[in-house]
Amino acid sequence: MHTYDISLTISPDMPVWPGDPAVMLERFEKMENGGNANVSRIAMSVHTGTHVDAPYHFIASGKTVEHLSIITLTGRAYVLHLPDVDRITAAVLEKADIPPRTRRILFRTRNSEVWARQENDFKSNFVAITADGAQYLADRGFKLVGVDYLSVAPFKEGKPTHEILLNAGVVVLEGLNLSQVSQGRYTLYCLPLKLANCDGAPARAILVGV
Amino acid sequence: MHTYDISLTISPDMPVWPGDPAVMLERFEKMENGGNANVSRIAMSVHTGTHVDAPYHFIASGKTVEHLSIITLTGRAYVLHLPDVDRITAAVLEKADIPPRTRRILFRTRNSEVWARQENDFKSNFVAITADGAQYLADRGFKLVGVDYLSVAPFKEGKPTHEILLNAGVVVLEGLNLSQVSQGRYTLYCLPLKLANCDGAPARAILVGV
Repeated sequence: MHTYDISLTISPDMPVWPGDPAVMLERFEKMENGGNANVSRIAMSVHTGTHVDAPYHFIASGKTVEHLSIITLTGRAYVLHLPDVDRITAAVLEKADIPPRTRRILFRTRNSEVWARQENDFKSNFVAITADGAQYLADRGFKLVGVDYLSVAPFKEGKPTHEILLNAGVVVLEGLNLSQVSQGRYTLYCLPLKLANCDGAPARAILVGV
Repeated sequence: MHTYDISLTISPDMPVWPGDPAVMLERFEKMENGGNANVSRIAMSVHTGTHVDAPYHFIASGKTVEHLSIITLTGRAYVLHLPDVDRITAAVLEKADIPPRTRRILFRTRNSEVWARQENDFKSNFVAITADGAQYLADRGFKLVGVDYLSVAPFKEGKPTHEILLNAGVVVLEGLNLSQVSQGRYTLYCLPLKLANCDGAPARAILVGV
């Protein structure tokens, strides 16, 4: 039974969404300068690296991130490997042979290779889920959808995919590194920071082999 | 099988360690102002709320937080209820009847009542582990030690307890809210943010009944 850490390392070098602030990590108390301990502070967008979106990210009356159910964020999940697609459409999902009763699905695409190669420039041509793909997932009762780049929606087309999933109560998990994970069944533990009244939160996510 | 969220909610009102910056949470993109989405940023000490300490917090050559083992951070744990003690000493631990082979231990003390009552002023008289208590835990092979206030060590006596535990490779988990959890056995999932080269990291932690 192997455990896979599918989280991105948070550092000042990592790519962030255009318009978001870069990650700031600074050690403000230093033992070598006579400090009692080493103590750092962090500043970043809550949509940095591996993170979840709360409904409030795109829905003015939507739930905030501390109210997402831990029961939804943890449990059986299916990793679907789609090495050759540029968009995750309803047609792609239709023929993907997803096991029945799957409620949490994580898409491994060519995006994960970007993390494996540690390329730190922002890629606008990342693989993401189209509006009809999102509708397919919402209609079939998926509770959590995870992707391996910084947005579940294609670049410059953020609204439809996010709105469909978040309105349907689907938890959106973004910024996964699935480069080490084969297609198949796992148990997911996705634990986002419990930020008050917030539109999203950075998370640590792991998969345990079943 | 019940799941307990034992994490503190991170908000600008919460108490922080004296000298640490207060939590800043700010929504910098707002739908009501014409933004495409709601997007927030956070700034805080990495030792805010529920968090882990890496050895590098007190040991100049110590491991940083992204290298803590997920295997240590997750697994069977014992919650010990000590409602009446002011310090967790070797003598207290000796007579506590901790089940054999316990490797992860979380101490529920009167500190947890502070969180239950949502008191947001910093308390300097919190219950913590003395140096001889830390030595007892290190000698007996504990791998993770969790406490329910912001430091594992008594106020103004930070160094000995931290150094003993961190030098022994014990993961230190601080800032738990155990007010809803009875004494007994659980499975712990403690997932700290994967911060690069850092002395600690905020975490979400849950307990699952066994």
